[in-house]
Amino acid sequence: MNKNSSNIMALAPNTSNKRETVCIFGTGDFGRALGHKMIHSGYPVVYGSRSTQISNLIPKDAEVLGHAEAAQKAAIIIIAIQRQHYNFLTPLAEVLRGKVLVDISNNLKLNQYPESNAEHLAQLLPGSKVVKAFNTVSAWALQSGTLDASRQVFVCGDDVEAKQMVMNIVRALGLTPLDKGSLLAAQEIENYPLQLFPMWKFPMILSLGLTAFFFFYCLALDVIYTYIYENNNFSFFIAITIPNRVCPVMALILLALVYLPGIFAAIIQLYRGTKYRRFPDWLDKWMLCRKQLGLIALAFASLHVVFTLVTPMRAFVSWRTSKGIIAQALNNKTEPLNNTNAWISDSYLALGILGYFLFVLLGITSLPSVSNNVNWREFRFVQSKLGYLALILCTAHTLVYGGKWFLSPSAYKWYLPNIYILSLIVPCAVLVVKFVLIFPCVDKPLTQIRQGWERNPKYSE
Amino acid sequence: MNKNSSNIMALAPNTSNKRETVCIFGTGDFGRALGHKMIHSGYPVVYGSRSTQISNLIPKDAEVLGHAEAAQKAAIIIIAIQRQHYNFLTPLAEVLRGKVLVDISNNLKLNQYPESNAEHLAQLLPGSKVVKAFNTVSAWALQSGTLDASRQVFVCGDDVEAKQMVMNIVRALGLTPLDKGSLLAAQEIENYPLQLFPMWKFPMILSLGLTAFFFFYCLALDVIYTYIYENNNFSFFIAITIPNRVCPVMALILLALVYLPGIFAAIIQLYRGTKYRRFPDWLDKWMLCRKQLGLIALAFASLHVVFTLVTPMRAFVSWRTSKGIIAQALNNKTEPLNNTNAWISDSYLALGILGYFLFVLLGITSLPSVSNNVNWREFRFVQSKLGYLALILCTAHTLVYGGKWFLSPSAYKWYLPNIYILSLIVPCAVLVVKFVLIFPCVDKPLTQIRQGWERNPKYSE
Amino acid sequence: MNKNSSNIMALAPNTSNKRETVCIFGTGDFGRALGHKMIHSGYPVVYGSRSTQISNLIPKDAEVLGHAEAAQKAAIIIIAIQRQHYNFLTPLAEVLRGKVLVDISNNLKLNQYPESNAEHLAQLLPGSKVVKAFNTVSAWALQSGTLDASRQVFVCGDDVEAKQMVMNIVRALGLTPLDKGSLLAAQEIENYPLQLFPMWKFPMILSLGLTAFFFFYCLALDVIYTYIYENNNFSFFIAITIPNRVCPVMALILLALVYLPGIFAAIIQLYRGTKYRRFPDWLDKWMLCRKQLGLIALAFASLHVVFTLVTPMRAFVSWRTSKGIIAQALNNKTEPLNNTNAWISDSYLALGILGYFLFVLLGITSLPSVSNNVNWREFRFVQSKLGYLALILCTAHTLVYGGKWFLSPSAYKWYLPNIYILSLIVPCAVLVVKFVLIFPCVDKPLTQIRQGWERNPKYSE
Repeated sequence: MNKNSSNIMALAPNTSNKRETVCIFGTGDFGRALGHKMIHSGYPVVYGSRSTQISNLIPKDAEVLGHAEAAQKAAIIIIAIQRQHYNFLTPLAEVLRGKVLVDISNNLKLNQYPESNAEHLAQLLPGSKVVKAFNTVSAWALQSGTLDASRQVFVCGDDVEAKQMVMNIVRALGLTPLDKGSLLAAQEIENYPLQLFPMWKFPMILSLGLTAFFFFYCLALDVIYTYIYENNNFSFFIAITIPNRVCPVMALILLALVYLPGIFAAIIQLYRGTKYRRFPDWLDKWMLCRKQLGLIALAFASLHVVFTLVTPMRAFVSWRTSKGIIAQALNNKTEPLNNTNAWISDSYLALGILGYFLFVLLGITSLPSVSNNVNWREFRFVQSKLGYLALILCTAHTLVYGGKWFLSPSAYKWYLPNIYILSLIVPCAVLVVKFVLIFPCVDKPLTQIRQGWERNPKYSE
Repeated sequence: MNKNSSNIMALAPNTSNKRETVCIFGTGDFGRALGHKMIHSGYPVVYGSRSTQISNLIPKDAEVLGHAEAAQKAAIIIIAIQRQHYNFLTPLAEVLRGKVLVDISNNLKLNQYPESNAEHLAQLLPGSKVVKAFNTVSAWALQSGTLDASRQVFVCGDDVEAKQMVMNIVRALGLTPLDKGSLLAAQEIENYPLQLFPMWKFPMILSLGLTAFFFFYCLALDVIYTYIYENNNFSFFIAITIPNRVCPVMALILLALVYLPGIFAAIIQLYRGTKYRRFPDWLDKWMLCRKQLGLIALAFASLHVVFTLVTPMRAFVSWRTSKGIIAQALNNKTEPLNNTNAWISDSYLALGILGYFLFVLLGITSLPSVSNNVNWREFRFVQSKLGYLALILCTAHTLVYGGKWFLSPSAYKWYLPNIYILSLIVPCAVLVVKFVLIFPCVDKPLTQIRQGWERNPKYSE
Repeated sequence: MNKNSSNIMALAPNTSNKRETVCIFGTGDFGRALGHKMIHSGYPVVYGSRSTQISNLIPKDAEVLGHAEAAQKAAIIIIAIQRQHYNFLTPLAEVLRGKVLVDISNNLKLNQYPESNAEHLAQLLPGSKVVKAFNTVSAWALQSGTLDASRQVFVCGDDVEAKQMVMNIVRALGLTPLDKGSLLAAQEIENYPLQLFPMWKFPMILSLGLTAFFFFYCLALDVIYTYIYENNNFSFFIAITIPNRVCPVMALILLALVYLPGIFAAIIQLYRGTKYRRFPDWLDKWMLCRKQLGLIALAFASLHVVFTLVTPMRAFVSWRTSKGIIAQALNNKTEPLNNTNAWISDSYLALGILGYFLFVLLGITSLPSVSNNVNWREFRFVQSKLGYLALILCTAHTLVYGGKWFLSPSAYKWYLPNIYILSLIVPCAVLVVKFVLIFPCVDKPLTQIRQGWERNPKYSE
């Protein structure tokens, strides 16, 4: 039937007449929105409905019939009804035999049912060809035509030809179909639109917690301490000075936390002598969110860069500078250039710039389209070699900048260590252990283990 | 025949001999360029031509025969001739029966013919399998081998197997085929290479017009007014000072214009009580170019950031700073730190930095590979929630910075308001109306309407 | 058999039972890692091995059988053995007839064998359907589950259905299959994971060489010369001053080198009067790495921008500024604003900012996901028009900044020209020749040649 209709249609010049009729079961919101969009793209649409009277909500050019008559008019039937009503389709099994049924349903929570809605439908109607599609697009997006977001429609199904037919409709609506394989993928596709950055949850909570801690730590030492003991009101430090102290600390710690799980994994593998045993759960989870941790670290580093660059524009800073110059001028003397100071100032700036530059490079490489264009060897080179180089440069930047604070007694207000000292603990630990791990006597067995060798083969039995 | 030849070929180790012969009809520029490239990729090429004598332009390793003999030698025939000459193919219908015809033609203007060239070809030769491909690649790009640009070749056709054969050739030439579905997509594919940033046209014109207006507005107030009334020659303001006044104004206004159509849409829907009626045409178009408006706003914001950061390096600024300090030194007094000033300066800088940071985040999310990796819910969260937050921060940044200008009489040169005041009208209006729209008494009916509810169902009949 | 098992399985709700059995030949590292991953994704796995006793290394839930028995249990057999042992499969030809054999092997160097491993396998077992897949994924990545990098698995094969089956497995493991066409693509796929940024090698070596040269050139003139003749120790210039002199020079020269090969190509084509002859090899290679040259130029330009922006924060600079102001204050006079200086300072800053802005735009357009979304006409517009504009702006920026150095005799320390003069040679040459090439009398024949016209048709015979 398809073949015939397309042959006949091919003679007609008008595009909108060439599309094959599509049937939609269900006149709910999504069914209506999809119908509007399909009619707009040139598809004749027929609705299958219990009552054929609620025609005013339905697009004007669409026909409304009973379920059985509507189904007979089309090769593709879009099931725009909820899973709990699927049972009413079983009496229609004969009419639906051989037809392509498009399951577009979503659930209210992740893994709500043991099997996906599409698989459930396929079990109810074994004679039909079930294809999962369209569930990742919202009715509002279809209706308003403002599909700025992802135009990708995940499609899966066991029948290749049925899948092709559905993918053609998807393309005709101006969307991009993405073949996700057999109907087994339906569960994953149904879970997809319910997620809200699942991989970012832990890194975000960790960052917010640490940021809050360091912010109040700085607030106590830089504003409250100064106010109490030196009677200076530096409350405006809250706007720039303290954020610019917290941001680099966060960037450095989070960057170190990206490389820490790799260190743990190496130690565990060395200790166990095999790679064929699962890591503890927390380590697995940690390793999976390394990219997110790294990107948050990059965000903090970028804020630190901009906060630093606006320094000369701050009223406080130009006041302090003027004061220093005027004091010199009034004392009628010019301080000579302090070569050591020039070296320290220039080298921590240069180290910071190079470290940030590598950091941005890592960020660019983690863009999906870029990382898809590098092979595994190249990705490892960038993320591991350049990543450690960035960590070394950033740690050195902090050490050179904050070095003087370590020993100076004035750094220990209220006997609390300066924030620089806190920020250096994790990165220095990571770098020291990594340095040990690349010694040949440690690296050689580790490499063997990662190539499949086992120290104690019995262990894994 | 295909099957046999590939079985025989499989025994030969030389890659270049394994490819099946491809026939090219037409010895024009693109036919020749494609032939060169195919021979280079190991395909035997035979040209079909009216005259078999113009062999010097054709790649040396290619055979040149009459159309019928050439067609018989290959299963795939590339039609490198112009649409107006397609009629000469009808006598060859018998020879071409069952063959794959690849239509590579382009038109000179959008929608030149009622039906696409490929569909026209399919109607002329109903026994052949027509596939549209290669029209998005230029002859020069093929010839010079410098395919830095898109390596994507859009392919469409009604016969799945024919499409696969063409896609394999595309891949063998080092290009990436992209299946666009059935031959109905040919029109769109033929229009594609004729476009020059169609979505950017309106936003670009709007931006250029507004920029010119604000530039001359500033020129009049800051340079000409100063020159006439204060006799100061500040003509060098044209290079940095005025651009750095225009850029933030443009960024703020364009960012507000991104969110304004959403506000209009909500009001229209509330007024009509339904979402099933089309928006006015201007609103539809405006909503479709919001991404482009946002990206231009980001470009202006980025220029503003860099223009601001170079401030301390400007000769004029260091002269002004010196003058201030020297004046203080000569008067033998040091001004105390003005705490209010420090607060204002630090907070507008901090607000600007945070706003710009969110703005860049929005920009990154709109990269195609990133937006393809987020689902609808995540995209809405970023573009709507974070977008409004960015607008609020940027508006606050401008308010804090320009606040003092509102009331100062010196701001009204020639009775014209300062540019800051003009820049704040649209963003403040958007934020106020949005604030009203999120009130529960307004938000609830709006949400219902967007879920498909209708206040006055008759209306849509 | 497949059909039956999937029908039976469809009734069982547990996902992990629905997958069809996969057989893996070979119990080496990759075979084991893939087995672990497949079992984890719900596939029953059976290993084919010479000895069925080394069971402790193999995943616990997998069966281990002899090769023939194992092969009979599955429709898909993964060949996880090395190419040199493929011969032992020939006796199994009868058992493997009609089965899908997945070749996952890699070689140790590029183009190690005349034909790819997968094609070799297909020739040994002509009755089986060979599919190439998984060779781009590392065992370590599969095992550790940390597939941060490319999740793309290149798949190729002559049998479409077999390819679909393998692609479904790829998707089930959470990876993205990418159809690369027929088995002829296997060679390319096998070479892929051995590469380490092959296109970047020449641009990187060139950049490092030039950078080293300019660094020592500046070191000699700015630090050593000053130390010898003026007895000033400016060794700290190594950290920021000299890098910030080398970076812009490198950026400008590399950007000009992006456009130089196009100039050469035009001249060669004009001279030869045809586009149908190959360019010299060095020019071809140069043209293919223009994107990389441009991105390295952008990296240098970005470093230059950041190095410049930190200037006011340097101890040396603030010391120099203070000295100047104090000298004025002590002399009791204020220098008036030098309008020419203000113009020069502001205009080279503005030119640099606009040039860098366009440069960044070019960089963003070269991101794979962005360049895939523009057509050829748009890409040419951005890369050619905007690219030349960026080159013009950056050259002008350097000319305005370094203009005063040209004639000043103090610029010729040790009779060597200042680095600015060196940096301007290539860009100015490119711009001058390009200016000549766009004259109508030159542009017209060039356009004709590029459209396929030949001055001397005999030439190409």
